[in-house]
Amino acid sequence: MLLCDIGNTSYHFYDLHSDYKESVEHFDPSSVKEDVHYICVQPAIKRELEKLPNWHNLEERIDRSDYYDTMGIDRIMACETIENGVIVDAGSAITVDVVRDGVFQGGFIYPGFKAFQKAYASISNALAYELDTDIDLAHLPKNTPDALAYGFLSGLVKEICSYDLDIFLTGGDAVSLQKQLPKAKVDRLLVFRGMLKSLGQDVC
Amino acid sequence: MLLCDIGNTSYHFYDLHSDYKESVEHFDPSSVKEDVHYICVQPAIKRELEKLPNWHNLEERIDRSDYYDTMGIDRIMACETIENGVIVDAGSAITVDVVRDGVFQGGFIYPGFKAFQKAYASISNALAYELDTDIDLAHLPKNTPDALAYGFLSGLVKEICSYDLDIFLTGGDAVSLQKQLPKAKVDRLLVFRGMLKSLGQDVC
Repeated sequence: MLLCDIGNTSYHFYDLHSDYKESVEHFDPSSVKEDVHYICVQPAIKRELEKLPNWHNLEERIDRSDYYDTMGIDRIMACETIENGVIVDAGSAITVDVVRDGVFQGGFIYPGFKAFQKAYASISNALAYELDTDIDLAHLPKNTPDALAYGFLSGLVKEICSYDLDIFLTGGDAVSLQKQLPKAKVDRLLVFRGMLKSLGQDVC
Repeated sequence: MLLCDIGNTSYHFYDLHSDYKESVEHFDPSSVKEDVHYICVQPAIKRELEKLPNWHNLEERIDRSDYYDTMGIDRIMACETIENGVIVDAGSAITVDVVRDGVFQGGFIYPGFKAFQKAYASISNALAYELDTDIDLAHLPKNTPDALAYGFLSGLVKEICSYDLDIFLTGGDAVSLQKQLPKAKVDRLLVFRGMLKSLGQDVC
């Protein structure tokens, strides 16, 4: 079986053994001949996939009434995997969702590393720096690169820790973010676990 | 006397009675014939102003050793005005600086409203919304516009409040931000107060 989580920038495949990514820009989904169970946050791609008989949209198996209408299906799939916790999916956007006793409590969206970096650079050339996720958040910065990295991370970390729940990190930048959330568990396959659950299966 | 605080987007003038702004793109500083005491965060504009004999750079009057080398002179001027507090300057960037017993403790930089909004929109069309500063931060959002506004504001507000100091808000978006920081004092002229102090004068 092949699973695929299609985000803003990539097709993320998982064959129950290993995972790999293909760029949204260059990948042709009709090149896959086996059955694919997928979720997709991009309406245009979703419309294309509906024409391919071997691509099956797992969104149809989810009761959306537990969530909200415009909530990304990747966030919903991740929420389906836990009973209690904060799920932080650090990709092109960072989504933060809270589940208590199996019930979705709400969540928020924050720009990802690259979008944040670009936002700073768009304000002034003087703010065009790589964001350093190793920064020490215990002390207020006294130089520009640290002032930017602190701005990106410190409030976000305070917010995530404020719920006093277990933290589950997923997405491409999960490991970078874990440096500031050392108690968090990194689970790269969290969304795929939700997808398997919707198929009535556990992940290996 | 004319004071001018030149930021990333505008010349902000203050004549000790009223203040007004001119766009950085279209304003010709040589059109001003009276003496102007200014600060400027843009190196290219600073070089132009050095050629104009009636434009006097107040940066020369500041002991930068109390701060850090690349810290914006507008942030420094604001810090010079208080003994204890957090200064939040909400413009194209939002700068947050902490002063205790007259000593600068450090500070950070966060993207302003517009830059944040653009950062979301750059990730996906599904995240292209106006940010609503009236959002209720006491409850986790359950719709996309609130999830974005919450992402922008909630961690920032938690961070600013964590210092347990008086909060001084300045900059073009100070009033919008005060909705989430009701105990903060809005002082539109804070930077000008610092500029006058460097001239040995109190603001009227």
